[in-house]
Formats: sequence, C-alpha cells, structure tokens
Amino acid sequence: MVEDPTKVDPKHYKVEFENEKVRVLRIRYGPGEKSIMHGHPNAVAVFLADGGAKFTYPDGKTEDIAMKAGQALWFPPVEHLPEERLGKSIEVVFVELK
Amino acid sequence: MVEDPTKVDPKHYKVEFENEKVRVLRIRYGPGEKSIMHGHPNAVAVFLADGGAKFTYPDGKTEDIAMKAGQALWFPPVEHLPEERLGKSIEVVFVELK
Repeated sequence: MVEDPTKVDPKHYKVEFENEKVRVLRIRYGPGEKSIMHGHPNAVAVFLADGGAKFTYPDGKTEDIAMKAGQALWFPPVEHLPEERLGKSIEVVFVELK
Repeated sequence: MVEDPTKVDPKHYKVEFENEKVRVLRIRYGPGEKSIMHGHPNAVAVFLADGGAKFTYPDGKTEDIAMKAGQALWFPPVEHLPEERLGKSIEVVFVELK
C-alpha cells in the first residue's frame, strides 16, 4: 500500500489547498531530516530554495536530487523515502495532479 | 478567440516544459510591463517574488493581484490582460493543467 505523505509524515507534508483537479502540498525539511516511505501521483515540484535530497526507493536503490531555487520539475508517480542531504532547509511547492 | 500567451506575448511567457498532463510556463515581467489579452486553462501559480499585478478582463473590469514569494494560488480558466503595478519584477511558475 502506498502511503499518503500528509498522513504518515505530517511534519514535512502539509496540504496548502485541494480541489477536484489538484492537491498542492507545502513540503519543508530541516537540515538532515528524513521522511517515511510514501507515494505521490503525477506532480510538478517547484523548489523554493537551493538544496538537495536523497531519495530511497522501495527496492533499496537511491538517487540524489539537486534542487535549484525557482526550478520546476516533473515527477511521474513515485514511491520513495526522501532525506535532506546537504545540511540545508528544503522548501517545495508540490502540485499533485488528480 | 482566446489567445495563447506564449504566442501573443513570448517576451513574458515561456514554456518551461510540457507533457500530456501539464504545460509549465515561466512568467517574467519587468517593472511596469504590460501583456496582451490572453487566456489560460485551470492552473496553479507559484509566485517567486513579492509583487503585484493588475488584471484587466475582456469586459473592462480590473482586479489587483498581490503576490507573495513562495505562495501557491489556484486559477480557474481565465482570459485577462496582466500588467505589473508596483514597479518591481514579477516571476511566476505557472502550471497549466490539460
């Protein structure tokens, strides 16, 4: 079962607003903070600060993500466990599509 | 006919990326700059700087929009003519839904 990040990790994932088309999340991690395995549907991330995360996938593989302030990035549906990896704060507006 | 902002005002509206679900625009206005009447489908705006715009609608009515850096805002389908109104630069990531 794919978990909803706002349910399993409400510290880092808050619903900014939601309607019949989208659910917009405000994602904030402090330096070095780690989430819990969860999933997202198709989404567009807009990074609000320079930073970086490590994603761990259910098969154990990992990927380093680089974030540039103001950058927009497409995410296909994903299940992952993110972790801040540069000792900085992360802030992202994450537009999940329904 | 509702005009595509990337066609009628490519100076201010650029396609950041596009796929079968979304078209993501990078919107930038210099101080006092004005667009040309155009339309958008359902969309989420993410403002990257504090600022303000005046929207003029096809019926001649106007509306002042306030922008806060990092804010996400839902836009239902709209036809409008935006103009920067505070003498500052505007930068927006605009996620149009298909």
